[in-house]
Amino acid sequence: MTSDASSTSIHDIDTVALDDETSELVVIDQTLLPNQVVLERLTTREEAWRAIKRLEVRGAPAIGVSAAMALYLDAKRFLAQNPTATVAALEARIADTHAYLDSSRPTAVNLSWATARMHEVARAVESKGNATAASVVSALLDEARAVRDEDIRVCRAIGEHGVELVRDGDGIVTHCNAGKLCAVRYGTATAPIYVGQERGLTFHVFCDETRPLLQGARLTAYELMASGVDTTLECDGMSQSLMATGQVQAAFVGCDRVAANGDVANKIGTSMLALACARHDVPLYVCAPTATIDLACPTGADIPIEQRAPEEVTEMWYASRMAP
Amino acid sequence: MTSDASSTSIHDIDTVALDDETSELVVIDQTLLPNQVVLERLTTREEAWRAIKRLEVRGAPAIGVSAAMALYLDAKRFLAQNPTATVAALEARIADTHAYLDSSRPTAVNLSWATARMHEVARAVESKGNATAASVVSALLDEARAVRDEDIRVCRAIGEHGVELVRDGDGIVTHCNAGKLCAVRYGTATAPIYVGQERGLTFHVFCDETRPLLQGARLTAYELMASGVDTTLECDGMSQSLMATGQVQAAFVGCDRVAANGDVANKIGTSMLALACARHDVPLYVCAPTATIDLACPTGADIPIEQRAPEEVTEMWYASRMAP
Repeated sequence: MTSDASSTSIHDIDTVALDDETSELVVIDQTLLPNQVVLERLTTREEAWRAIKRLEVRGAPAIGVSAAMALYLDAKRFLAQNPTATVAALEARIADTHAYLDSSRPTAVNLSWATARMHEVARAVESKGNATAASVVSALLDEARAVRDEDIRVCRAIGEHGVELVRDGDGIVTHCNAGKLCAVRYGTATAPIYVGQERGLTFHVFCDETRPLLQGARLTAYELMASGVDTTLECDGMSQSLMATGQVQAAFVGCDRVAANGDVANKIGTSMLALACARHDVPLYVCAPTATIDLACPTGADIPIEQRAPEEVTEMWYASRMAP
Repeated sequence: MTSDASSTSIHDIDTVALDDETSELVVIDQTLLPNQVVLERLTTREEAWRAIKRLEVRGAPAIGVSAAMALYLDAKRFLAQNPTATVAALEARIADTHAYLDSSRPTAVNLSWATARMHEVARAVESKGNATAASVVSALLDEARAVRDEDIRVCRAIGEHGVELVRDGDGIVTHCNAGKLCAVRYGTATAPIYVGQERGLTFHVFCDETRPLLQGARLTAYELMASGVDTTLECDGMSQSLMATGQVQAAFVGCDRVAANGDVANKIGTSMLALACARHDVPLYVCAPTATIDLACPTGADIPIEQRAPEEVTEMWYASRMAP
């Protein structure tokens, strides 16, 4: 089920939310941005699975929070439909849903991290002598909320640290979408900007459009403008010329993974931005929660790089519009 | 008038040609590439003006050659329609057409350079005692052919110099379109590749797609593939990651202008490519005819940079194709 929220600014909406009264997971359908703001209300695990699979929810933190909420809602629904279910029956359902949700995007570490965390909480309650199915569901609700609150708290902390690195009026470049749309609120790379805005600071933000899938244009420029941030969309190849004009004082980017030696992997194009920053003595800051640091990964060379379909470059966004 | 040449490879067609038998200027309509190869046969100066204005012919050398041919064809047509025209009447027409053609793309230096050169030749003949209108037209034909032949010769010389800088099997990056489609034959940055191909060398060429107008994708990747060159299209932000894999041995780019101190201006994104080259010790070669060196321009800071419409980034190529 969906509802059109086009008249509402996404600035005021959490990317992912739990409506416990209606037992629904409420997400912004990101496949329709920036043309339409549609809130999707998901009731079954199948609907949640499809929303993750189809990238209606995307961004590692947002996927993790969605999966945690979906796991809770499914357990709650199961108990409502089977009021006399035993703890063992509920556990079987949770295990099944855990595996099912994980299959929506098998490479997304945050997804399986969040479902495993939820499942572990359920098992901890189940192992107690006086456990009831209702107490398991109740613990899952608390944990889903904890996962969400933790995301908001971590992003906000990134913002509070990050905002100390820039000054009122600074020009800031960002790449791809590490914005509120990849988390619940604040985002990672955008958190310093949003926290600064709350403190009355103004920045001018330059968003790399981020070819091939244009997340910087479709998502970051969109969410910043919706939040009233002074925003300029630029093509990925423009940063060096822009920095030569002195309009940029810092770059903030997110990251997929940090290796134990400090190497960072992020969306293609990030290292070109870093070269331009180095050339112009502009600091580039990688904004990431500690969960992104992978101590089991010695260097950047050990980070697996996702190779995507060539058609994303050759076909997806091309249209012959030159002829008048 | 147009004719569909889709079954013909552009490899075998000059970008701009003079068909003196039919009194037509024959150009590849570049607004339809790469989807359609359409040869446009232009008969009047108005048709030539519109073809330049609408970017059906684009690229500094190709525009210059087209304008030279159009000026000749208009004088020839004028004389055919006014067989008793005096030299003075023809001169008035040439002066009018000179100004008219220059107005199609007022900032294109090659355009006004070519029309001025043609006009000067006409005036030199007119100033002789025994000048006839026919002798002026004949001199214009010779000069239009000379402008074309010079372009071919210069591009070929660039290719012969450039091919010495690379080795069989090398990976080469290029940016934007400085290919045969911006000239008559060979192009500038692509000339070493085409000359190498004639000599039996094979290169793997990586074309930056070149946002916002994607000339690298629509034109360079297209013309190289049509010529049988092993070609990969990449997004502008990918060069640094590509070079890190050791697949690139050289970069060849064209340029808009070279200042007296050696500074170079070229399509946005070129300097990002140069930074990636510097990082990986990959030589970047600027391929340009001597006419591109502007000794009146002391440094790069004195080169006027064209600021184009924001809509080329924000609107032109966007389509919401994410939703299945």
